This record gives sequence, structure tokens and C-alpha cells, in this order.
Amino acid sequence: MALIVQKYGGTSVGSVERIEHVAKKIATFRARGHQIVVVVSAMSGETTRLTELATAIQTPPDCRELDVLLSTGEQVTIALLAMALQKQGVAARSFTGAQVRILTDATHGKARIVDIDKQRVSEALAANEVVVVAGFQGVDEHGNITTLGRGGSDTTAVALAAALKAEECQIYTDVDGVYTTDPRIEPNARRLDRITFEEMLEMASLGSKVLQIRAVEFAGKYNVPLRVLSSFEENVDGQTGTLISYEEDGMEQARISGIAFNKDEAKVTVLGVPDHPGVAHQILGPVGEANIEVDMIIQNVGADGTTDFTFTVHRTDFQRTQVVLEQVAKDLGAREVNADDKIVKISLVGVGMRSHAGIASQMFEILANEGINIRMISTSEIKISVVVDEKYLELGVRALHSGFGLEQSIEVSQ
Amino acid sequence: MALIVQKYGGTSVGSVERIEHVAKKIATFRARGHQIVVVVSAMSGETTRLTELATAIQTPPDCRELDVLLSTGEQVTIALLAMALQKQGVAARSFTGAQVRILTDATHGKARIVDIDKQRVSEALAANEVVVVAGFQGVDEHGNITTLGRGGSDTTAVALAAALKAEECQIYTDVDGVYTTDPRIEPNARRLDRITFEEMLEMASLGSKVLQIRAVEFAGKYNVPLRVLSSFEENVDGQTGTLISYEEDGMEQARISGIAFNKDEAKVTVLGVPDHPGVAHQILGPVGEANIEVDMIIQNVGADGTTDFTFTVHRTDFQRTQVVLEQVAKDLGAREVNADDKIVKISLVGVGMRSHAGIASQMFEILANEGINIRMISTSEIKISVVVDEKYLELGVRALHSGFGLEQSIEVSQ
Repeated sequence: MALIVQKYGGTSVGSVERIEHVAKKIATFRARGHQIVVVVSAMSGETTRLTELATAIQTPPDCRELDVLLSTGEQVTIALLAMALQKQGVAARSFTGAQVRILTDATHGKARIVDIDKQRVSEALAANEVVVVAGFQGVDEHGNITTLGRGGSDTTAVALAAALKAEECQIYTDVDGVYTTDPRIEPNARRLDRITFEEMLEMASLGSKVLQIRAVEFAGKYNVPLRVLSSFEENVDGQTGTLISYEEDGMEQARISGIAFNKDEAKVTVLGVPDHPGVAHQILGPVGEANIEVDMIIQNVGADGTTDFTFTVHRTDFQRTQVVLEQVAKDLGAREVNADDKIVKISLVGVGMRSHAGIASQMFEILANEGINIRMISTSEIKISVVVDEKYLELGVRALHSGFGLEQSIEVSQ
Repeated sequence: MALIVQKYGGTSVGSVERIEHVAKKIATFRARGHQIVVVVSAMSGETTRLTELATAIQTPPDCRELDVLLSTGEQVTIALLAMALQKQGVAARSFTGAQVRILTDATHGKARIVDIDKQRVSEALAANEVVVVAGFQGVDEHGNITTLGRGGSDTTAVALAAALKAEECQIYTDVDGVYTTDPRIEPNARRLDRITFEEMLEMASLGSKVLQIRAVEFAGKYNVPLRVLSSFEENVDGQTGTLISYEEDGMEQARISGIAFNKDEAKVTVLGVPDHPGVAHQILGPVGEANIEVDMIIQNVGADGTTDFTFTVHRTDFQRTQVVLEQVAKDLGAREVNADDKIVKISLVGVGMRSHAGIASQMFEILANEGINIRMISTSEIKISVVVDEKYLELGVRALHSGFGLEQSIEVSQ
């Protein structure tokens, strides 16, 4: 008997029929004697419907009230799933984020979990009930409803698994695991049986929309084994999909796990900034204060004692970033601000590459052979990212996938 | 400057446009310096939509989980109305039942309010905010979400008005006040300017669906003046509609306030019960234990030492009542159980009639003149109710309305 946390996303609970299907899957698990905590998202389409109601009234909607509104989405699902489980003869009880007491900070719309009071969940588990928890939501210390932002239900699941010391956290979704790249772009993409937390972080943050980055961070921090599975396939053994865990012996080869990409970013450059100490802070300080998250950062020194400072932001923050930067550029005496949202980031991810520097040059060569001009480069121990024009996305991904032989399970030789 | 509690029903907040209309009304009030607490229902249609989702999964739905589900309806409205108020430049903050802490008992689906913690609402009012509260919902002492049952939003409004010692509780609805009877049945029905709590209790409980009976009880108990107004008419002075309050001088004439009726009841009779002490308890005990509410009760002694025991229940409880009674009849050695759900109750209501017994015979004569057979009679100090065949509803109401001259504002003479 093990304690398993399972999370079902919006598509998996997108209709009454699908909720009943999920209930049957859970009942099968339950019959094997497992204790189960289920975390669910809003039914697919519901969050969009609610957001449209809000924006029809107020643009942008008040962030506190938007959280009150959006949190109803998951609340509907938990009640319906608890009913469906009871219909299957499985004792079940639902909890909102406030009821579990998933305590978060007060940043509406992208709150972070501070603490989980596991008492009520533990009591329900002890009473032999399946516990159904609303993902994506919590309360701040004053009792205001908060939401965790995009993909927050994954984070809820992992945080609960960590708090309850669950054996595994299973993320059921509409794909059956983590792939070497997006199969819609490269049909030869291959499912990975295992991947490390670090690699998954890069894959997730770079746009392989399987798992939310904060959920993976959480799982890594608390060492919660995370498994991505399809909610539509029969996999009652819970042993298929992709397992995300810490690196094990035998994983130390020069291995490329996959090609990630991100179409949601935009690039901004402050050109001709006087090159003196503290300039990066003077540029990024106001950006951070405006609550804009920055991804890649590159600074080039020019010949004339000025520097060009480039970074990427989420496309939804593109306009705001430009407004902030125009002022910053003026204050700094910079020449101009240059902005481009027709870009894409492509990344090669793999634990193996940390000790194999030749991979970078191999990557650049593959892209050059296809005539793809590289606009930015950024590297870390386990990934190499390049920014290229948006139009090269498919070509670049396919060339790299094939160039590194990812369609077969081979080791990269150099 | 006065503290006013306003309640807007589902039709009044049935669309984004109507929510914005309500926000404008509130803004006008606010501009006069009033402090305002607003209680809202779910958008019209929403409760039905949610109930259908539930019954598509489980019949009947688990009552705890149904409350979790249905309470999302009002939660959506409070968020949207708070946004709409902010758009009007009015500071506003929403609260769910759990957030105000509207403490109820644990009877899911028809919980009763036990206590209201007015601290958070008072704080928000002190901060010059309009407070928007979800009607119909609360929490029990264990933090489980409860709902107050049909029309519960009225009760929430009155309970808040009582707790906050508000000057008036205004119920905005799709009618502009309390009428002498349902205008859809008698086009000559007339709006009453004033009515007493007692009369309103009879009018409400007997099916004039303007106000929920428990809201009127609450208002009477805590002496909260209650006003029914149209949310679609311009009545920014808040002085139109019908005011429900305690009896005042000059109201002591022999006055009939109106004709109420109820199509939601069914009649059951246990025939040939051995007539000995305690028989009423033996019949109604099991009915009460099954949580079935009983309205009219009549017992006739027959000639043969047996008695016939008749009472009415809500039609939704009709089937269950029969099941309970079949067993009771067996246990008591009664002859048979007779049941009829094709009946209607028509009631004459008025403070004036308590000292004017002739009104009853006048009522029976009017009905007899129309050939309407009376199946049950029940009287109280301020009402006389008769049960007749359903088909006589319209004829009976019109005959009484005209027979007692209710289309004009006159006093009844005998």
C-alpha cells in the first residue's frame, strides 16, 4: 500500500464522461489498496470562459477578484469528481485550496505556496477516503483566495506529495510522457522513459508544455518522484509514461535528452548604453519592479565604449517592457531601444553535455548548414539555447533532432 | 449616511450587462454617502447548469459535494460585481460565505445561519469599500461549505443587515414589490406599499415567490425593515416598492392584504387509523425523521372509532412521504394511504382578519358560488387557507381577489 498523488489536467476532466472515466481509473488504483490524493484542474474551456466574463467587465480585471472568479473552475471539478468516485463505490471528499489550507503569499495570479496544513487531508485519508483537492489555488494569510498561475495544478500536486511524503506524484495529461521534442513538429520524436529533474526543468521552462516549471522545481527540491502519464491510455500499473527523478548511475553518458523550444518570448535590446559598472542593474531593476520576468540576458561590449544589452521576456509582457525601457534608455543616455517579438528560442537539453563541450559547436554547425542565422546564444551546464527568427522554428528543431540522432535511443559520440 | 444592505437576485445579475447596471445603481447610492453591503445570487441559469452537471454524474448528488459545486455560482457573481464596481470608480471587495464567516449548521442544502462574524465586513466598510457578499452559502464549524437552500440569498442579506444593524435591507428582484396576488393570474393585482412581517410570512410561505420565508422570519426577529424593489426600474431614492415592517398605528382595520397560493404541495391521507392518543406523533414522527417538512395538518374523527389523518408536503417529497407512510400505516393497522399531488392551496392573508371571523364564511361562499369544492381548510390568526383541486387555481384566486375588492385600496366591511 502506497500513498500516491495523482493530478488530472483540464482536458482529462473536460466533460462529465471524462470525469467518470477518471473516477474509474482512480477506483482501479484504489482497489489495489493505495491511498490516493487527486488534484484536478478546471474543466477545459472553463478558465477561458471565466476570464472572458471578467474582461468583458474590467480590463485588466482586478487581480484579487480575478482569483475569486477563476478559483471556482477547480471547485466545480472537485465536487463532480468526488460525486463520480462515490458513484463508483469509492468514498471521496473534496477540498478547495482554502479548505486544505494551502497557504500562499499574496501575489494574486501567480502566488507561491508557503505551507500546506496536511491535517485535514490526513484525517480524510485515515478515514479511507480518496481526497480530491482543487489545484491552482490557495489562500493568503488573510484568507484571500489566490491562484498559482498557469499550470499551477501541477505545483499543487507536487506540493501535496511533498507535504504528505507520497511515494510518487503522477501527472495525468493528454500526452503519454516527455518526448525528445514536440511530435507535432518532428514526427520522429521519441518518448523518454526517464529524465532528470534538471533536464525536465530545462525542457519545461523552454516550452515543452508537459509540466509546469515550478512543479518540477518543487519535486526536485523535495525529491518527489514525478511521473507523466496519459489519462486516456490504459496504464493502470502506473509504470508507463516518463519518470522524472534524480540522476542515477548509468545516466552519466554524453546524452542529449531532447530539443525544447519556446515561441512565447520576445527580445528587447537597449543599444548604445554607456558602459560603466552597474548598468545591468540600472536596466533590469525597473523591469523587475514592474514584475516582468526576464529569461535570457546577454551583454555585448561595443567598440565605442558603449554596450548593447539584450534580454528576452514573455510576449505578454512585451509592450510593458518597451514602455519601461524607453524611460530607462532616456535616463541612461542610451542610443535606442530595439524590440522584436518574431523570434523563437530552441534549446538542446541533456545532462550529458556538461562535460562534452563539443556539442555546442556541433549544434551551431547543424544550424549553419540549414542557413539559420543565430541571434542570441545562452548556455548552462545542461542546455544550449539559441534565439533564431521565428520562421526557422520547424526547420531548426528537425535538423537538430535528426542531427543528434534523437529518433533512436543512442548515445552521442564526439 | 446610513448602512444599507442590498440584495440582487439571479435575474438582476443574469448577464455582464445586468451586473454593470447593478454596479451603476450601487454607485449612485454610494455617491449619496451610504455605506453599502451587497448580497448577490448566482447568475440566472447557473445553478440549474451546475445541478445538471451533478445529476448527470450522481443521482441524487452527494449533498456535501453538491454544496461545494453550487456555491461556485455566487462566487462568480461577487467577483464580477466587485470588478464592475471598481470600473465605476467605487472601491469594492468580494467575500464568499466562508470568508465573511457565515457560520451555519451542517445541514447541507438547507443549512441555517448560526452566527456571522462581522469583523471582516466591518473592516472593509471602514476602509470605505462596498462589500460584496455571496448569498446562499456559509460554512459549518468544520469548514465544510454549506448552502442555505432555495432563496437563501435573501436570508444572507437579512442576517447581515441584522448583524451589522443596518438601517434597511433592500431586496432587489424582477418584480417591483409585493402584490395582492400573482399578477400573472389576476391582472388587477395591486402593489402593496406596506405589509407586516406576519402577513409577508404568510404570503411568502404560501407561494408568492417574492421573498424567502426564512429571510422574513429573520427580519421580523431582529426587526430589520425589509424593502422589496425592482432592480430594473429607476428607483434610486430607494423609497418605492413594498416596505415590510412591524404593524403601525392605522393598520388595525379589518384588512385583507392579499391572496397567496402554492402549487408545490401534495396531499397525503392515512385513512382508518385506530383513534387513540399519540397517533399524530406516531404518523408524523417517521415523516420528520425522514427530513420531510409538513405544512397543513388535519385530523378528522370518523364514526367507527378510527380517524383520518391528512397533511400536505412539498411535491418533491411526495414519493418519499408515500414510502414512509405505507410502513407507518402497516405498523398502526390503518386501512390505507391516499395521496394526491394535483392540488393547490389558496390563502387569504391579512392582519385585519384576526378579529373579524366573518371573513372565513365570506371566503367559503365566494368559492362555493364558483362551484369550487374545498378539500382541506386551515386557519391562523392572519390567514385562511383552503386546499382545492389544482384546476381551480386561477378561478379561485380571481374570484377571491375580486370578491374581497383587492383591486382597489379599500377596507373590508362585514
